[in-house]
Amino acid sequence: MTARRPADRQELEIRQRRLLENLASQRLDALIVSSPANIRYLAGFTGSSGLLVVGADAVVLFTDPRYGAQAAEQAACRVRVVRRLVRGGLGPTLVRSRWKRIGFEPSRLPYAVFEELRACLPSRVRLMPAAGLVEDLRAVKSPEEIARIRRSAATALEAFSRVGPTLRPGMRESEVAAELDYQMRRLGAEGPAFETIVASGERTAWPHADASSKAVAPGEPVLIDMGARQDGYHSDLTRMLALGRPGLRIAAMHRAVLEAQLAALESVREGVSAAAVDRAARQVLRRHGLERRFVHSTGHGLGLEIHEPPRLGPREPRRLRAGMVITIEPGVYIPGLGGVRIEDTVVVTAGGAEILTNSPKELLVI
Amino acid sequence: MTARRPADRQELEIRQRRLLENLASQRLDALIVSSPANIRYLAGFTGSSGLLVVGADAVVLFTDPRYGAQAAEQAACRVRVVRRLVRGGLGPTLVRSRWKRIGFEPSRLPYAVFEELRACLPSRVRLMPAAGLVEDLRAVKSPEEIARIRRSAATALEAFSRVGPTLRPGMRESEVAAELDYQMRRLGAEGPAFETIVASGERTAWPHADASSKAVAPGEPVLIDMGARQDGYHSDLTRMLALGRPGLRIAAMHRAVLEAQLAALESVREGVSAAAVDRAARQVLRRHGLERRFVHSTGHGLGLEIHEPPRLGPREPRRLRAGMVITIEPGVYIPGLGGVRIEDTVVVTAGGAEILTNSPKELLVI
Repeated sequence: MTARRPADRQELEIRQRRLLENLASQRLDALIVSSPANIRYLAGFTGSSGLLVVGADAVVLFTDPRYGAQAAEQAACRVRVVRRLVRGGLGPTLVRSRWKRIGFEPSRLPYAVFEELRACLPSRVRLMPAAGLVEDLRAVKSPEEIARIRRSAATALEAFSRVGPTLRPGMRESEVAAELDYQMRRLGAEGPAFETIVASGERTAWPHADASSKAVAPGEPVLIDMGARQDGYHSDLTRMLALGRPGLRIAAMHRAVLEAQLAALESVREGVSAAAVDRAARQVLRRHGLERRFVHSTGHGLGLEIHEPPRLGPREPRRLRAGMVITIEPGVYIPGLGGVRIEDTVVVTAGGAEILTNSPKELLVI
Repeated sequence: MTARRPADRQELEIRQRRLLENLASQRLDALIVSSPANIRYLAGFTGSSGLLVVGADAVVLFTDPRYGAQAAEQAACRVRVVRRLVRGGLGPTLVRSRWKRIGFEPSRLPYAVFEELRACLPSRVRLMPAAGLVEDLRAVKSPEEIARIRRSAATALEAFSRVGPTLRPGMRESEVAAELDYQMRRLGAEGPAFETIVASGERTAWPHADASSKAVAPGEPVLIDMGARQDGYHSDLTRMLALGRPGLRIAAMHRAVLEAQLAALESVREGVSAAAVDRAARQVLRRHGLERRFVHSTGHGLGLEIHEPPRLGPREPRRLRAGMVITIEPGVYIPGLGGVRIEDTVVVTAGGAEILTNSPKELLVI
């Protein structure tokens, strides 16, 4: 009935058990989960206010009264509805438990919540930073999760193919973004995966440009970076268009980035390090004298969030595993001139990469 | 040129000076600002990756290379582009400064960033939690900010009046939400202020329902809670519709909530406490035997974020000030039956409240 179908209850309980095994190996009695995406992954609850604690003898979700009915319907665990999540719920529960070593998510928990929690607990209880435990589980996707990302990617692609060719001089970037978002919604997305980027002319040199009120002019390059969020899962896609023949430098940048993107894609397979994939792209751009213009990493994992581990950067020793879903998106940016980025969402397999955003990557001249 | 016009430079510098005065009164030498909305408010930078430090002798924004060009164009302060914001930028800058007491935002700074920062600093430097300093400045809006919220509210209202009357049995909640969002974009919004809520039938009893794939059926109540984000500023509006004559209980709930909402609006003026406004709504609902069904507070401030101080709850002694922009949104929810909420965005004035979402609040029967 809800747009955000949680995974089924059995799958959620398997995830909780796998987390508990990992906690045991770190000699943690329980983990406090504060990231909404991690709470959804483990317990199926999609509300924006919640704290979850996962321990061997109890899994409990604390939420406030606004989400009581929703949590009762969704959550694959005990639910406690309290006005103050820490002082009125999680804190007392931890005090009553026999847990001594309790992990928390250091990058996800605000300092103030940590302090509030510490003030509730007796000194025999130790709060231990335990980063990335749930994210590690999430990095390798189940077939059901991959199916959702596949649908999300198909939605983004279809919206792009409906709207891209309608681009005309004088259209505002923000209008184009509005049409893309609208088509994704009509195709079943809850919304865009992130604020849809439509950048034209010199604004393409901003790697994270938003869609502005600037009108697209003849001869300009246009960068569209978009994705869908569908059944909770994200997709990510970047393509370049040009209104009429682009300048020679933009065309040359596009050829170089495409070569780099294909080289990186070619390098993807289970067992390869994330850094090696990044290096494959960077080496091509170095040959074209553009390495210094490549100011970000080659890609990132995605799933319930648009940015998840692994990061595909120069210093990432982590090895790719089959079932990871990642982006491959080298780009080069020259302030005052423009930028080019090309991006696909792909599944890592034993033998290579399956591209979920398969479509032409040439500069689309309109 | 950008959709997210920052405030003009002079206005930004005035805000920085006002913050410095407040820092001095708390004997702080500088404040580390980590909330993106606070960074935008003080420095005009709209990127999603940044840390700002505001001190008497230096105001510096740290951002990563993806945002270098954007920061150079937008920021009303020095910009340092670094790959690692804390270890490569903010940390060394703090070490070189002569600052001894440095504030940070405890609810906005993840525990991990706090620890990374502390590890960079010598023991003579004290990091002090300093909550709400920028939020306090932001709570009272300038005329230019109110003008932006007014436009944002007009956009939300116009989209509602275009889409609401087109509601028909069989339409999915998510389709209605998609149309509302699309109309807001066409009217100049960057996007919705939050995930647009379209809930029908029993789902209206979820105060924070998303728009699901459920189709709207004859006789059902429909709750639409929506807002725009335009020029960075949010608006918020809730109205109830019904497809054909609603049940008697829903109609009675609607009359009670409307009476409560009008009573709360009537109580708003400069100098009144936030709790008194909440009490005005709660007393009406008590008379109708519905007080226990009112599971949230009566409203909240809004501006660069959709939820800002002040909160209009039972235990909020804070007094309203002219220029605050707040929502007034009592609601009652009966699981298994349905819920009703009515909401306006208003400006607090010396003599009362100016409603920015002025439109009929009767149950719109279609």
